[in-house]
Amino acid sequence: MPRVARTDIVQPDGRHVYLYGDFAAPPPDYEAPRMPGGGVFQRRWNPLRREWVLVAASRQARTFLPQQAECPLCPSTAGRSSEIPAGHFEAAVFENRFPSMIRERGRGGVCEVVVYTDQHDGSFATLSDSQLTMLGEVWTDRYRDLATQAGVKYVYIFENRGEQVGVTLHHPHGQIYAYPFLPPVAAGELRRQTHGCLQCALIADEVDGKRRMLIADGGMVAYVPGYARWPYEVHLAPREHRSSLLELRPASRTRLLKTMQRVIRAYDRLFEVPMPYMMAMHQSPPGPPPAQAHLHIELYPILRDRGKLKYLAGSESGAGVFINDTLAEESADRLRALLE
Amino acid sequence: MPRVARTDIVQPDGRHVYLYGDFAAPPPDYEAPRMPGGGVFQRRWNPLRREWVLVAASRQARTFLPQQAECPLCPSTAGRSSEIPAGHFEAAVFENRFPSMIRERGRGGVCEVVVYTDQHDGSFATLSDSQLTMLGEVWTDRYRDLATQAGVKYVYIFENRGEQVGVTLHHPHGQIYAYPFLPPVAAGELRRQTHGCLQCALIADEVDGKRRMLIADGGMVAYVPGYARWPYEVHLAPREHRSSLLELRPASRTRLLKTMQRVIRAYDRLFEVPMPYMMAMHQSPPGPPPAQAHLHIELYPILRDRGKLKYLAGSESGAGVFINDTLAEESADRLRALLE
Repeated sequence: MPRVARTDIVQPDGRHVYLYGDFAAPPPDYEAPRMPGGGVFQRRWNPLRREWVLVAASRQARTFLPQQAECPLCPSTAGRSSEIPAGHFEAAVFENRFPSMIRERGRGGVCEVVVYTDQHDGSFATLSDSQLTMLGEVWTDRYRDLATQAGVKYVYIFENRGEQVGVTLHHPHGQIYAYPFLPPVAAGELRRQTHGCLQCALIADEVDGKRRMLIADGGMVAYVPGYARWPYEVHLAPREHRSSLLELRPASRTRLLKTMQRVIRAYDRLFEVPMPYMMAMHQSPPGPPPAQAHLHIELYPILRDRGKLKYLAGSESGAGVFINDTLAEESADRLRALLE
Repeated sequence: MPRVARTDIVQPDGRHVYLYGDFAAPPPDYEAPRMPGGGVFQRRWNPLRREWVLVAASRQARTFLPQQAECPLCPSTAGRSSEIPAGHFEAAVFENRFPSMIRERGRGGVCEVVVYTDQHDGSFATLSDSQLTMLGEVWTDRYRDLATQAGVKYVYIFENRGEQVGVTLHHPHGQIYAYPFLPPVAAGELRRQTHGCLQCALIADEVDGKRRMLIADGGMVAYVPGYARWPYEVHLAPREHRSSLLELRPASRTRLLKTMQRVIRAYDRLFEVPMPYMMAMHQSPPGPPPAQAHLHIELYPILRDRGKLKYLAGSESGAGVFINDTLAEESADRLRALLE
């Protein structure tokens, strides 16, 4: 059960909404948006890459960069019904109306949108400490809840930020995918965990080496890995072995999020623009303990310089070889100087 | 030995240039551009992903979208020395002045640029049949030559097209990377070849199924794979097992390139803009026969709709799960209707 208040709502089209903390009732004329019909959802096995590809061929267009007045993540007001059936809220989660996979006889997946705050302007970087604490509880609750649902093989908490990453909504939010299979990146990492915890060893190396360490504080570490694929890639983790958010005490969850926020604020100072990035949280897959993973967060900022994107081109996409035009040690120096 | 005339030149900074076919001497004042000093070239092992990351940290900026008058791939003229020491040429290859890896005691890699024609305007889609034949011979020669160089474990012929893929030069060209290790995508495919040729089976399925076939002609096939990661991904291959360009007769090489050109011309008609794409050619790694691979070309066009890019975001980058918003069968129908 969550450590904060949670209110569960089922919309007329069957999608779930979870309101966390305090909230106000929606306006009397609230009308929930409906998932468009006619979508085709499949997963197809790619035998060359040995991976599932999700096919989500909807005939309807997704909401694309709406003005604030039409933002589907803002509270609902009279005459304007958003995805959130509330006139005010602290944090909310709802099942995506334009998902990449759907539940089907317990074998499908779940796509959730996590709304960090009901304030339209801002980002993860501008959340207050109490909002970070709330978000930590929301993520933990969603992980616990989704991990126990039938057919869910992996719960993946992530965030895309910035139009250059394809983000179509500016309101501060992230996503959660509950995959009905173990994704290849997670599967690969878990294979590395069979002879002791590789993450524990990598973290110990970085702590000892210091050279690429950004933050080592309150049991959390943040560093530029020596083998970064992205110019300013940063990995964060609890220093001690914890397989998921569930194994962190609440204060530690807040510290993990606070550590991430400090890094992202440094990103935003680096080129004096909000850094477009992807955030990927890797945890243990559902199942009995002993869980194998070591909870960690990977941040992939996609700028390599002021106004210059790091592109994934032929070498990355066709051969699987990343090219990084920075030295991890120098990236760490630059980011460290921007930490507050 | 190549089947066409080849002239080898070593520039003052040690980089090789290969002129294929006919060419004219450079202007008397030709001065070869020099590779900037101060670059750092490393490869670093990513133990989480089990892959090499190439680090190429040069202090110098790459040439970025030059005007035609400064194009480094055009022929050299009086007062304007390009990368090509010739006043005219048919096709040329030179070692990249801004490489992502360099040779080092036989353990490094080679980055070559393949200039398809000395005409600045145009693209692979506009090459004449005789230019396609020449390019087929150039690719074959480079594959043969690089595959026998010390320390080369994989020869990867590819092309990035379009600014949205990060292309910095518009002159029609592609690239070749000779990696000092087997890249993960190639390694994965080769693991699939141990119990017979998977490509042969996949091609037979597509030929039998017909549903996603675009072209089956002259011993070549082009189809949208059922498990496409990109909305209009197309795979091309000789229908019979051939492990590399070397095992194709010259006329078949031309047919393979001509087949690819027909597909790319359909791409350009699809949204009435030059389609940005990546082309990845997968062949056998160097070594004694029997070679394991089945030569094939994968085309990844990055538009999913008119003016809309397919982004690699959190699911693709952090979990390794591609989301495709089209059905391969419908993509095949659309492309087939645009073939000429």
